[in-house]
Amino acid sequence: MDKIRLGMVGGGKDAFIGGVHRIAARIDGQFDLVAGALSSTPEKSRDSGQALGLSPDRCYGSYAEMANAEAARPDGIQAVSIVTPNHMHAGPAIEFLKHGIHVICDKPLAATMEQAEELATAVGQAKALFILTHNYTGYPMIRQARAMVAAGDLGALRVVQVEYPQDWLTEASELTGDNKQAEWRTDPARSGAGGCIGDIGSHAHNLACFVSGLKVESLAADLQTFVPGRRVDDNAHMLLRFGGGVRGMLWASQVAPGCENGLRLRVFGEKGGLEWAQEDPNYLWFTPFGEPKRLLTRAGAGAGDAANAVSRIPGGHPEGYLEGFANIYAGAADAIRAADAGQAPDLSLLPGLDAGLDGMRFIAAAIRSSNDNAAWVSL
Amino acid sequence: MDKIRLGMVGGGKDAFIGGVHRIAARIDGQFDLVAGALSSTPEKSRDSGQALGLSPDRCYGSYAEMANAEAARPDGIQAVSIVTPNHMHAGPAIEFLKHGIHVICDKPLAATMEQAEELATAVGQAKALFILTHNYTGYPMIRQARAMVAAGDLGALRVVQVEYPQDWLTEASELTGDNKQAEWRTDPARSGAGGCIGDIGSHAHNLACFVSGLKVESLAADLQTFVPGRRVDDNAHMLLRFGGGVRGMLWASQVAPGCENGLRLRVFGEKGGLEWAQEDPNYLWFTPFGEPKRLLTRAGAGAGDAANAVSRIPGGHPEGYLEGFANIYAGAADAIRAADAGQAPDLSLLPGLDAGLDGMRFIAAAIRSSNDNAAWVSL
Amino acid sequence: MDKIRLGMVGGGKDAFIGGVHRIAARIDGQFDLVAGALSSTPEKSRDSGQALGLSPDRCYGSYAEMANAEAARPDGIQAVSIVTPNHMHAGPAIEFLKHGIHVICDKPLAATMEQAEELATAVGQAKALFILTHNYTGYPMIRQARAMVAAGDLGALRVVQVEYPQDWLTEASELTGDNKQAEWRTDPARSGAGGCIGDIGSHAHNLACFVSGLKVESLAADLQTFVPGRRVDDNAHMLLRFGGGVRGMLWASQVAPGCENGLRLRVFGEKGGLEWAQEDPNYLWFTPFGEPKRLLTRAGAGAGDAANAVSRIPGGHPEGYLEGFANIYAGAADAIRAADAGQAPDLSLLPGLDAGLDGMRFIAAAIRSSNDNAAWVSL
Amino acid sequence: MDKIRLGMVGGGKDAFIGGVHRIAARIDGQFDLVAGALSSTPEKSRDSGQALGLSPDRCYGSYAEMANAEAARPDGIQAVSIVTPNHMHAGPAIEFLKHGIHVICDKPLAATMEQAEELATAVGQAKALFILTHNYTGYPMIRQARAMVAAGDLGALRVVQVEYPQDWLTEASELTGDNKQAEWRTDPARSGAGGCIGDIGSHAHNLACFVSGLKVESLAADLQTFVPGRRVDDNAHMLLRFGGGVRGMLWASQVAPGCENGLRLRVFGEKGGLEWAQEDPNYLWFTPFGEPKRLLTRAGAGAGDAANAVSRIPGGHPEGYLEGFANIYAGAADAIRAADAGQAPDLSLLPGLDAGLDGMRFIAAAIRSSNDNAAWVSL
Repeated sequence: MDKIRLGMVGGGKDAFIGGVHRIAARIDGQFDLVAGALSSTPEKSRDSGQALGLSPDRCYGSYAEMANAEAARPDGIQAVSIVTPNHMHAGPAIEFLKHGIHVICDKPLAATMEQAEELATAVGQAKALFILTHNYTGYPMIRQARAMVAAGDLGALRVVQVEYPQDWLTEASELTGDNKQAEWRTDPARSGAGGCIGDIGSHAHNLACFVSGLKVESLAADLQTFVPGRRVDDNAHMLLRFGGGVRGMLWASQVAPGCENGLRLRVFGEKGGLEWAQEDPNYLWFTPFGEPKRLLTRAGAGAGDAANAVSRIPGGHPEGYLEGFANIYAGAADAIRAADAGQAPDLSLLPGLDAGLDGMRFIAAAIRSSNDNAAWVSL
Repeated sequence: MDKIRLGMVGGGKDAFIGGVHRIAARIDGQFDLVAGALSSTPEKSRDSGQALGLSPDRCYGSYAEMANAEAARPDGIQAVSIVTPNHMHAGPAIEFLKHGIHVICDKPLAATMEQAEELATAVGQAKALFILTHNYTGYPMIRQARAMVAAGDLGALRVVQVEYPQDWLTEASELTGDNKQAEWRTDPARSGAGGCIGDIGSHAHNLACFVSGLKVESLAADLQTFVPGRRVDDNAHMLLRFGGGVRGMLWASQVAPGCENGLRLRVFGEKGGLEWAQEDPNYLWFTPFGEPKRLLTRAGAGAGDAANAVSRIPGGHPEGYLEGFANIYAGAADAIRAADAGQAPDLSLLPGLDAGLDGMRFIAAAIRSSNDNAAWVSL
Repeated sequence: MDKIRLGMVGGGKDAFIGGVHRIAARIDGQFDLVAGALSSTPEKSRDSGQALGLSPDRCYGSYAEMANAEAARPDGIQAVSIVTPNHMHAGPAIEFLKHGIHVICDKPLAATMEQAEELATAVGQAKALFILTHNYTGYPMIRQARAMVAAGDLGALRVVQVEYPQDWLTEASELTGDNKQAEWRTDPARSGAGGCIGDIGSHAHNLACFVSGLKVESLAADLQTFVPGRRVDDNAHMLLRFGGGVRGMLWASQVAPGCENGLRLRVFGEKGGLEWAQEDPNYLWFTPFGEPKRLLTRAGAGAGDAANAVSRIPGGHPEGYLEGFANIYAGAADAIRAADAGQAPDLSLLPGLDAGLDGMRFIAAAIRSSNDNAAWVSL
Repeated sequence: MDKIRLGMVGGGKDAFIGGVHRIAARIDGQFDLVAGALSSTPEKSRDSGQALGLSPDRCYGSYAEMANAEAARPDGIQAVSIVTPNHMHAGPAIEFLKHGIHVICDKPLAATMEQAEELATAVGQAKALFILTHNYTGYPMIRQARAMVAAGDLGALRVVQVEYPQDWLTEASELTGDNKQAEWRTDPARSGAGGCIGDIGSHAHNLACFVSGLKVESLAADLQTFVPGRRVDDNAHMLLRFGGGVRGMLWASQVAPGCENGLRLRVFGEKGGLEWAQEDPNYLWFTPFGEPKRLLTRAGAGAGDAANAVSRIPGGHPEGYLEGFANIYAGAADAIRAADAGQAPDLSLLPGLDAGLDGMRFIAAAIRSSNDNAAWVSL
């Protein structure tokens, strides 16, 4: 089976998420990275590309050039991964979609709602696919959790608790001059108006919705900026009202010392509860009311089809973040192959435009609510 | 050293917390239970008393009778434990205080703010002590946490997360006819207007304040009653604003399947974080920013004077809920002995009227906020 | 119900286990400590006794004096707790048994096999009861584990893994002059020939047998003394062969930095496994083969009669070491009341002479095996 | 940088470890799989190869054919991965080494000591590299642990405890006809004389030596076969004596229900201890004596150069088994590039022939000891 020819926008030196996308694309051997506009200048793009084994003539100085050139080649890329800072998602995505090239885009959809809407229009008009890497939905035990909720194992849901604390912005790292990640992620011009709420709160929101099968209907948010001089929020507290009378809370923080990447979800229904923590992703607690607590393990007893479909190795051999991310790429590969074969791709578990728009509305609502002293805002 | 002569109001058969108070009073051998108005009728009171080895003539049919009789005896009780449902706290407490008998009262202070204020007046006029068993403040590692915050080990605080989920009211246990605990705790006439928020939310609030050394200045609460027909809330979500710009969240629930008694506190400051969970109380995580995470253990390396003062046995030999509760009784014993010797008791770590009034204001504010669609309410 | 009148031998100042016995005796309010030979001189004994509220005339200068005097009083002690160093177990126990006073003795049975045999003879001739505080058998989830094995929930057993690492003797604390515990526990004249193997290896052995319902038939032991100058072993490695072809291992250490009191038992059968750790004693893992892992909790769903019979408070409210110890005292109280009422006491779960002799044989076999280069030795 | 051209022997359908090797080779993009003798017949080999995108003319019917053909091609493979059952390791390895092709071989070295010695001779004569995938040494926190021991952070070592329990052979899965893994791994003709001891005991042994920097000098082993009819051991208990007076234990089992892949290592020295568990590989406990326990995390505070050199993503984003395995491939890539460039490869952390021979001696010694009733056997 031929590999899917893949390009990449962003992901040059000093980038974090670009390397993650590349590993995710490699793990199952379904993609071949053959072109890139990896950096902001042609020289740096070529340097980065050569380190990755790209042919020099397919290391482009801009995404527009790349879209044109690749669309014109008989062996041009079939898909492109966009791994730039948030304000540079929509532009490239629209460009490649126009050229009929499938887009795999890092989240969030865009830095502003205006960009998001332009992109939405482009997706609506495109024949190519648009996939958004809400990667945490790729974890096997998250798939398991979603399937269990959908199967009614918890009964009617009541409460959803989600949190995502980190500590890497506890100090003003954006001012030290050697932390590019901190710089752009706290710069509203590049990250969008949301800081913590956009960067990781949006992951928490997405995960809560993905597993519960519900949408947040309204929220009341109290956003804070604790680090003096920071231009975006670095901590977010939120009350949530989901559809069906389900209530919840969301906490996201980048100033919580001791928390590395503490995404954690708990869902409770009339008949039972579920708990999952990203840092220990091969486990899922299932606590049916009145019965002993059960610890389900990836590929172990109790893991069902939904989890097993995205597991690669036996239980007890931990899969991690990269494999979870790779499951999004594996889903993308299936969808791309189907689409390129003229068939209807299965997009049921693949985050795309809708998840992206939900995320943008969530960020906007949180900021609006917080600016109005945590008044309720509908999404 | 003579034991302190102790009486008890409430705590007869079918009671839960009365037995806990008795064990807590016994553990350090400082109290001798010699009198009781244990049940609501003289016969049941006598039955319960005899099972506990009380002399029949000191098993009373009512607390008023007991207060009068014991105050008149030369060997009468020096202190009384009040372990009745919430609506029966203030009355007995006032009565015993009037007779100069020290009061150790289960929390909350009262079922209503009116009762609480009457009690406050009585405490203000009494020479006897009033102690409120906010027992979770007695855990050694909570004492350690409070001392570390006070010593500045976390730097200026920023975020306080507290939660207290349980699952025992997931179903309508108050209707089955065989669960007296569920009955009175969901009956507003006996428990007060708050259900979950009063029963356990108040513990969470108290603990957050005790450790952080802060007061909640305002809150925005979304209370729910999930179980059909229930007359009080069974789940509470809340945004908190503490003094000094510290922000927090509180979740309390009695309908979270899989959660037994999940009180858990996390405190984050500019320099580090702390995490403690009641179900594993001998551990305290301390996470100084930029350093390896440290797990402090009761009576182990890293435990300081504040914890060691209330530890009984070496590290690795777990102490639990009863020992934590007993630490309140141990503190009460010291205070009572000092007071009875005409000295000033050390009340710095002993919860009393102030903590009780804070708790009552917290419950009232939460209900008011929730009735006003989670608007901010000052305490 | 009148309390059982209790005396104590040992347990004065600087003692550890005496205080534990006293708390254990108090927790359920079944005993009243009224006499003691608490220290090695009459003066110190009186000082220690007064601090505990004993009447001065019942603070004795020697156990022999105490046995005589108490046996002669109409209100003399019914039972005595012996909490001295190991070499002082047998003498007092024999003396009190001769006077018809029930004995509750700390483990091990004695410092030497000769003492143990003398004591065995005395127990055989006595009408009074002899109870040995192998306290770890008192934990509710250990009772649960034993019941599950006995009920066949694991199928035929195959493997038993038990370990008991500590770290408090990592350095030569016995030489610093301020650590009485370290001094006598590393002094063969007081502790017996076994150091670590006698002090805690014997607990591990006892627990493995109690839960599995099996006896160790032979063992191959490799004992070490890592700390220079130490006169007894401080680390023990052992292969075990139980009855019925069950195999196992035992590790005990007092030089394992980071291990506080790490007693841990795992039992595996054809159909499932169990795991329990003393430092987190309210949990029991049950892992039926081919099914999700289950976490049973004390007083929670899945805990059965055996555990519930020795639980005091609801699940999620942790009980600890002192409550587990108190369960031995509670069992002793029942047995003593039955015996004193002329009835047959239920000794099925109460460790006594047999467990004590098994322990002595285990220690002796381990030392003999190790001296013979880990050759197999039958017990 | 051009990718290394890689071939594979074994790893067709129904194989487990072949897929793992392929992912490990892909993760860092350093290898390109271009040829294979994937199955035992030419047809199946071709089917398997095509599914992997191999050119049909490079899907070979036998490893010998492949070695000849590839060595003759100008674009022939530079390295080959051998992922067959144990009895098929030495033959192919020798063949490819003779043709100057680097060998990356799954462990153990061979099924018999005779094969191992032949292979050793071939390695000694070859210019090509021989790398053995003792993959657990690739985990970052294992590298960290090894570096900490070497740096003296634990002081002189005393005790090493290693265990590796699994449960997948609890029942006679080799007889059901649908479990090829169980079949060959319990067939002495294919796995070698050791069952559990060879399959996973050898991993435990290797890991203990890798981290401690020590060799096992002698052992006393008690091997069992619990499942009736099984032809190899399925449980192994062992006393270990390392160099320098260090003592240890090893337990390996494939019949321990509830244990998925429970490799766990604890190392204790005069000054501190370390603990690591494969199922949660991003954590390493470091417990310096007399100080609070510290939890080191991959890429987190406290992780040093040795760990960071083989970490790909930030702390809190879990890496797992496949990344650990990929670290062996990354090391192999570096070594192969160096060797092919005529430079001396850095083999200091790369397991090879020596580790393989140590493993073979370990397995043989364990079997010999067990056959002699657990007598001590020198390695």
